Amino acid sequence: MNEPVLAGLLTDKYELTMLAAALRDGTADRRTTFELFARQLPDGRRYGVVAGTGRLLEALPQFRFDDAACELLAEFLDPDTLGYLRDFRFGGDIDGYAEGELYFPGSPVLSVRGRFAECVVLETLALSIFNHDTAIASAAARMVSAAGERPLVEMGSRRTHERAAVAAARAAYIAGFAASSNLEAWRRYGIPAEGTSAHAFTMLHTRRDGPDELAAFRAQVEALGAGTTLLVDTYDVTTGVANAVAAAGPGLGAVRIDSGEPGVLARQVREQLDQLGATQTRILVSGDLDEFSIAALRAEPVDSYGVGTSLVTGSGAPAAGMVYKLVEVDGMPVEKRSSHKESHGGRKEALRLARPTGTITEEVVYPAGRPPRTTEPCRVLTTPLVRDGEMVSKPDLGAARELVASGLRSLPWEGLNLSRGEPAIPTTQIRA
Amino acid sequence: MNEPVLAGLLTDKYELTMLAAALRDGTADRRTTFELFARQLPDGRRYGVVAGTGRLLEALPQFRFDDAACELLAEFLDPDTLGYLRDFRFGGDIDGYAEGELYFPGSPVLSVRGRFAECVVLETLALSIFNHDTAIASAAARMVSAAGERPLVEMGSRRTHERAAVAAARAAYIAGFAASSNLEAWRRYGIPAEGTSAHAFTMLHTRRDGPDELAAFRAQVEALGAGTTLLVDTYDVTTGVANAVAAAGPGLGAVRIDSGEPGVLARQVREQLDQLGATQTRILVSGDLDEFSIAALRAEPVDSYGVGTSLVTGSGAPAAGMVYKLVEVDGMPVEKRSSHKESHGGRKEALRLARPTGTITEEVVYPAGRPPRTTEPCRVLTTPLVRDGEMVSKPDLGAARELVASGLRSLPWEGLNLSRGEPAIPTTQIRA
Repeated sequence: MNEPVLAGLLTDKYELTMLAAALRDGTADRRTTFELFARQLPDGRRYGVVAGTGRLLEALPQFRFDDAACELLAEFLDPDTLGYLRDFRFGGDIDGYAEGELYFPGSPVLSVRGRFAECVVLETLALSIFNHDTAIASAAARMVSAAGERPLVEMGSRRTHERAAVAAARAAYIAGFAASSNLEAWRRYGIPAEGTSAHAFTMLHTRRDGPDELAAFRAQVEALGAGTTLLVDTYDVTTGVANAVAAAGPGLGAVRIDSGEPGVLARQVREQLDQLGATQTRILVSGDLDEFSIAALRAEPVDSYGVGTSLVTGSGAPAAGMVYKLVEVDGMPVEKRSSHKESHGGRKEALRLARPTGTITEEVVYPAGRPPRTTEPCRVLTTPLVRDGEMVSKPDLGAARELVASGLRSLPWEGLNLSRGEPAIPTTQIRA
Repeated sequence: MNEPVLAGLLTDKYELTMLAAALRDGTADRRTTFELFARQLPDGRRYGVVAGTGRLLEALPQFRFDDAACELLAEFLDPDTLGYLRDFRFGGDIDGYAEGELYFPGSPVLSVRGRFAECVVLETLALSIFNHDTAIASAAARMVSAAGERPLVEMGSRRTHERAAVAAARAAYIAGFAASSNLEAWRRYGIPAEGTSAHAFTMLHTRRDGPDELAAFRAQVEALGAGTTLLVDTYDVTTGVANAVAAAGPGLGAVRIDSGEPGVLARQVREQLDQLGATQTRILVSGDLDEFSIAALRAEPVDSYGVGTSLVTGSGAPAAGMVYKLVEVDGMPVEKRSSHKESHGGRKEALRLARPTGTITEEVVYPAGRPPRTTEPCRVLTTPLVRDGEMVSKPDLGAARELVASGLRSLPWEGLNLSRGEPAIPTTQIRA
């Protein structure tokens, strides 16, 4: 749990046995380019949101193998390989899409260059980070666009692995969520932490003669102030709202509704709050929300949303389908040939074309260093992230958040449609 | 990444603000029972497999708040609450299903007893662990039963968060997987590590005049011995198999097929291997397998399976739907009443009835200490895990594995059906 883990071991065994074989036959020093990309968007999605870049850059200097690890690895690795790992430090270059950038099928999200030995061993960790974080950010962005101007709070920690929860909060924040319930995400990344109360707290205030919701609400207001959010659906929502305003006064910050039909309840609660003079009290809705139910609540008097399960599980697409493929060896493009799983060889870069209004029209993936000539407004997407093993682009959550927001604004209207469809813009692959 | 994280902060903010409110109004010391259970099985599943118990027990002593954490938490917590957290140590009792036990809707998987203060703060962490690990183990068990006697290798690290990957490997192993590709799972839990090779290694051996698969295979055999597993589908499977046997001889350990129609390819490859005299060479199939495609391969000459994405994402159910509910306060049963999300109040235990053949017939959940009288063979499922904060049941992966295996044997035949259906046995809830 709080035990430190060596990033180098968060890796598939075969990365290290391939390394051993390559060191032995002399191919380990070949200059290679690996590309991280998704062959397709998950499940009828129209765009994806790149996330994980910052976490990978931060993990890179920690990708080491200490003596204890090497002692263990000696069970299946030879002394030369162990010697290599003991001194391991990624010394290559990485280019890629900035964190928060939109991506489409075939977008070269990351291009990792260096000796085969130093590039291959990063595969598992890079994919873990990008497949997880990108899945969450991509789902989160759809929720953000469905919610319009209303803020979203990430509340899914309990529905995913305890460490994945921290990364999920980070990815959701990049995608435009306003806050998270997760305290470690607050500590580690400075993501605003928010919280309300659980049904347990209300039920705790049970007396011999029955429930005492009013006592629970009074205790919460006493401790946290009238600006707190009271959970009103433990017993009966109408009584709950009456108790909430009785406990906090009309200055009550917010009420939370976590069950029932949220649209109907929100209208009813809004009316009741207004009648009680609590016209500024906000309504937070939570409980099995996803982008579709958030969209369905657009016309209802809901002020903010708490989203859990569907967010941290990528709303039906819990892994982003990113792969990490060797595309170039000593300057030669290489490609896998069997079945339809082929990838295009050669190191690539990408740019995105737009109308003068800013609406994007096409993504162009081209051989590195050879951008197509165009008279349309365009933006190069590939940026330097690492040079000679050193980070040259510092992770910046605020910048990533802005990039997602501007990316969503740049989509053609149909790109924001929640229904299943084609990617919002076509991608043209210019082959070498 | 390898930075130690304080388990206490892997928590939702509201746990600590509820604590603050309860300390302030004196309810924090009330004797409570929280129950961790699933209202239903995911998505037409017929049984679930409990996993996470051992990880929670190991995390319990680490659930602390150090000075640095308390300094941060002072932003929204009062000095009394901070004082409580600084000395925090769970001192209550936990009963529950042993890790590896089957569960059904309403099974009291965990029963946490103690003061409200010490029980409520464990909610997020307990749910994170059980919702993740149980989802993976439940999906994994279906794959294990679909695979029959053939071994399964967990290869999903790259498709999930890098730390979740370690727990996923553990959960899959409990459910009966033979091995994992994850090195940290091998280091931390002693799970057998296995690996083959990636297409990148073959493509690395590209020469100016084209691919040189044979050189790649020779290098791998040279480094890892003829017992290794060669990946034969980078270019052409038939040529790949020929090259594999040419490189390793007929004593080649195994070949891996990662693309195409695995059934057709397995038959073809088996025939070719046999013709080449490699009659003992095994065939490992991987590439987007799930329980259904594994079952479809039953009649094909496949020796083992490598499973990634579908395993670590719970094969359509990435979170197990476990909740953590207050069920008793100072000896009084408590229940949430609104909507259909009600839970049954009161501390509970459970037993499982079986026919004399061992086939289970019914799960009975009853008020703690009051088991129903029965003449049928039965087994009490609730066991002591923690007493006065101290672990009394040491996590044992081997025992958990055996429990899953015997659980699967005990299911009525229709319970092993992969199709959507009702829980394999009914659960009777005896109310207090």
